[in-house]
Amino acid sequence: MFIRNCWYVAAWNHELSGETLLARSILGEPIVFFRCEDGSVTALEDRCCHRAAPLSLGRKEGDHLRCGYHGLKFDSRGICVEIPGQDKIPPQARVRAFPVMERHSWIWIWMGDPATADETLIPPAVGLDHPDWRLKAGYLHYEASCQLICDNLLDFSHLTFVHARTFGGTNAWANQPPKIQRLDRGLRIIHTMREVDAGPMLAERGQTGKVDVFNVYDFLIPAILLLRGSRPPAGTVSVEPGENDFTSFSCQAVTPETERTSHYFFSWGPRKSADVPGLLDLMWRTALAAFEEDRKMIEAQQMRVDTNPDLNRMAIGADSALHSFRRLVDRLIAAEQQAGKPLQTPQAPG
Amino acid sequence: MFIRNCWYVAAWNHELSGETLLARSILGEPIVFFRCEDGSVTALEDRCCHRAAPLSLGRKEGDHLRCGYHGLKFDSRGICVEIPGQDKIPPQARVRAFPVMERHSWIWIWMGDPATADETLIPPAVGLDHPDWRLKAGYLHYEASCQLICDNLLDFSHLTFVHARTFGGTNAWANQPPKIQRLDRGLRIIHTMREVDAGPMLAERGQTGKVDVFNVYDFLIPAILLLRGSRPPAGTVSVEPGENDFTSFSCQAVTPETERTSHYFFSWGPRKSADVPGLLDLMWRTALAAFEEDRKMIEAQQMRVDTNPDLNRMAIGADSALHSFRRLVDRLIAAEQQAGKPLQTPQAPG
Amino acid sequence: MFIRNCWYVAAWNHELSGETLLARSILGEPIVFFRCEDGSVTALEDRCCHRAAPLSLGRKEGDHLRCGYHGLKFDSRGICVEIPGQDKIPPQARVRAFPVMERHSWIWIWMGDPATADETLIPPAVGLDHPDWRLKAGYLHYEASCQLICDNLLDFSHLTFVHARTFGGTNAWANQPPKIQRLDRGLRIIHTMREVDAGPMLAERGQTGKVDVFNVYDFLIPAILLLRGSRPPAGTVSVEPGENDFTSFSCQAVTPETERTSHYFFSWGPRKSADVPGLLDLMWRTALAAFEEDRKMIEAQQMRVDTNPDLNRMAIGADSALHSFRRLVDRLIAAEQQAGKPLQTPQAPG
Repeated sequence: MFIRNCWYVAAWNHELSGETLLARSILGEPIVFFRCEDGSVTALEDRCCHRAAPLSLGRKEGDHLRCGYHGLKFDSRGICVEIPGQDKIPPQARVRAFPVMERHSWIWIWMGDPATADETLIPPAVGLDHPDWRLKAGYLHYEASCQLICDNLLDFSHLTFVHARTFGGTNAWANQPPKIQRLDRGLRIIHTMREVDAGPMLAERGQTGKVDVFNVYDFLIPAILLLRGSRPPAGTVSVEPGENDFTSFSCQAVTPETERTSHYFFSWGPRKSADVPGLLDLMWRTALAAFEEDRKMIEAQQMRVDTNPDLNRMAIGADSALHSFRRLVDRLIAAEQQAGKPLQTPQAPG
Repeated sequence: MFIRNCWYVAAWNHELSGETLLARSILGEPIVFFRCEDGSVTALEDRCCHRAAPLSLGRKEGDHLRCGYHGLKFDSRGICVEIPGQDKIPPQARVRAFPVMERHSWIWIWMGDPATADETLIPPAVGLDHPDWRLKAGYLHYEASCQLICDNLLDFSHLTFVHARTFGGTNAWANQPPKIQRLDRGLRIIHTMREVDAGPMLAERGQTGKVDVFNVYDFLIPAILLLRGSRPPAGTVSVEPGENDFTSFSCQAVTPETERTSHYFFSWGPRKSADVPGLLDLMWRTALAAFEEDRKMIEAQQMRVDTNPDLNRMAIGADSALHSFRRLVDRLIAAEQQAGKPLQTPQAPG
Repeated sequence: MFIRNCWYVAAWNHELSGETLLARSILGEPIVFFRCEDGSVTALEDRCCHRAAPLSLGRKEGDHLRCGYHGLKFDSRGICVEIPGQDKIPPQARVRAFPVMERHSWIWIWMGDPATADETLIPPAVGLDHPDWRLKAGYLHYEASCQLICDNLLDFSHLTFVHARTFGGTNAWANQPPKIQRLDRGLRIIHTMREVDAGPMLAERGQTGKVDVFNVYDFLIPAILLLRGSRPPAGTVSVEPGENDFTSFSCQAVTPETERTSHYFFSWGPRKSADVPGLLDLMWRTALAAFEEDRKMIEAQQMRVDTNPDLNRMAIGADSALHSFRRLVDRLIAAEQQAGKPLQTPQAPG
């Protein structure tokens, strides 16, 4: 069960270029992405209406996509405009088309009713081309549900344990609960930890004394994390940082591939004005190692959940953000269902 | 759901020699094949009646097969003739035996009621030893249902798209529908295309001008394709070719391994009188590449079907042969069911 | 369906040392094993009560186990004694703890109600440190049910066929049924075969004449085989051997990992007083080859059973021991069910 009327990150925009047909499943539905001649992105059901062949095995012909099996040709609205060997094209000769937006270096897709697609609901992510930040982009595939990954991202107490050798290095993550603020479509989570160990990453750059940690992230529907942080030497900053005082930024997005597998898109990097040679490389090496630590734990957790899906689990204090976010998701799903089941095969626009 | 009262191709006859015990599943049933001393082929249920061990892990003893687990010995009718350590052999000590024929270089098996096995129903395939043709033999395993492969073989419009770099090279396959004739147990499909591009394979031999394409194949129950073809330079032949004018021949057979996997046996080659050095090699390289093109497409199609098995698909004109053949298959299955469920464990003959 | 109120072999005791956290599933339940500071072994449910992460991905802290995800700390009774970031620990903060015994070089686990764990029910196996025997230890993982492996071990007629090149070498195993005696919780199976071929293993040591074979093994609940054997030159021993006359010993244990996969622990070796250079190596090479012969056959058998789980199988005389043992298992399972379903989450002791 997923929220459908929202924007999911489907790809990095640099994954789509030239003649590329990108096949990717989102919420269990096979989709093919490609760029039209004007650079805009089209997302169609990746399954020909004729005999179910994946259209991603076909070829782009200008703004059209031709099935590689029997040659049916579809326009960017999913409407079949040519059937080889016959003149008449029946009206049901079409595949589903999905609203798509390219923004903040990501390709966003709307999986619900196209008529309700609302551009203003795209979260305020930060793209790779943002003037203030030097960001690198990554992707991981998860053999785990989107929910288990969200749970992870909504509770940084795990940094102390999972990431002791990467992001962590202090018990403060686990022992000092963050402030949690409700946002319109998500949560803001604020960690302010003073006089803590600098941790492995800063240590590698020679900063081994105590630091203050300022970490603020928004976690937004459907599963978008926007994080800014700074770790000045302890005591050098008396007030909490303003927007311009943060020295690092990370965008992360989790998108269900199926009920039990997920896409994980992420960027991280320093503020350009705070950048020094080698910093981004160090951050990136650290992040990749840390994200593998997460993946190992979460995929193992998923296997335990699979073995006993009905097992009761015991809540603890550190769960409050993730429970709050789960309730928000459940409310949005319930609201969608009350408003009528979203169209599985909506009319294409135009 | 399969037709049972018909002959399926189970193997190339050269797969069975000497002491070979060939284990192969047909219509989901594990079967072991071996040759008796007189060269005849026996097919038995590959599962001992004692503790279900595969008999194919045992050994041939003359015309008998001994289970490799506890030593029960079966004759070629599937009747147990020895149980080590005991004198009495109960009458239920037997495994199913299947009627088998060796013809046209293939081993054929009758999966229905043995009492109805009718030799005259073996399709008129062409063996590797036929005096007129120089044929090579191949095999592919498919992660796709027999039906999807039949669909492919019954609609050559896909040559234009799937085989653009091998068998195709002209839009005529897709744009000029074939003539379709009903046969007693199948269909005859006739492509006559004049003044078309010679295509990649002939081009590799320097024939780059226009050709006429004559292609005639029978597709027979259960899934046997018998194809003859010729591609003379355009305009050099005014009438359609007679049997002796075709310059290539292909036999192909699809046999369900399970509901969702298949065996694909095939041969192809030139008429001996039209053969020239290098021709068979070129044809064979082309065929292997083309059959991999098909397999890639059909296995991808199967995955899409698996994801949404109940999805409606839209028929087009090019489907008429395959729909006609499916109806024939359905009629034969219905007739079998009306005549009484075929025996799952029939009495062995004798 | 398994017997729960009995001791299963979970590991060789040398698998657990220092900081090792051994993750192993027994009867389908994920369990983590570790040694406390005093050397005693603890077995806990390998699934945190908080969010189902495997505790085996955490770390040992003295006699405690800390979850590697959010840091919950458990004592050796499975009781949570620390939740980072909060003071109060709810009473349901615990994981299941299993009674464990270390004996005869094996770690034994009691999968039923801990209150009924009865040390006297541990079978009288022989450890690697026994003064009389020089034993080597091995392990195989099986893609087959425990029952199919027990069936194999309860019917040595298969030595003639499966092990013709290793343990076998004579038809006598199949043709001369053993004596079978009932024991309190199992069976004793006695093979006495006079004037038979020495077989491949003895032949490799130059003993090619006839031998007498004395083979006695107990097969005990849940699936423990204790075997002593001797093969003196034919006619040199007129009476059956007493305990001290056997020249080889083997302990074997089968433990269900899941309904369809199993652990197989085994040791084998000569009596120290009968040992000669090279003998143990020869025995061990032979045993490993033979156990692979078994595994190949039994895993293939399992695949046939999977395909047709409801197939009737035909009993033969050689099955009497295995049917007798199955009936004993069924009686014990029925008795457990009559006595009340064993607790799935029993109170931890203390």
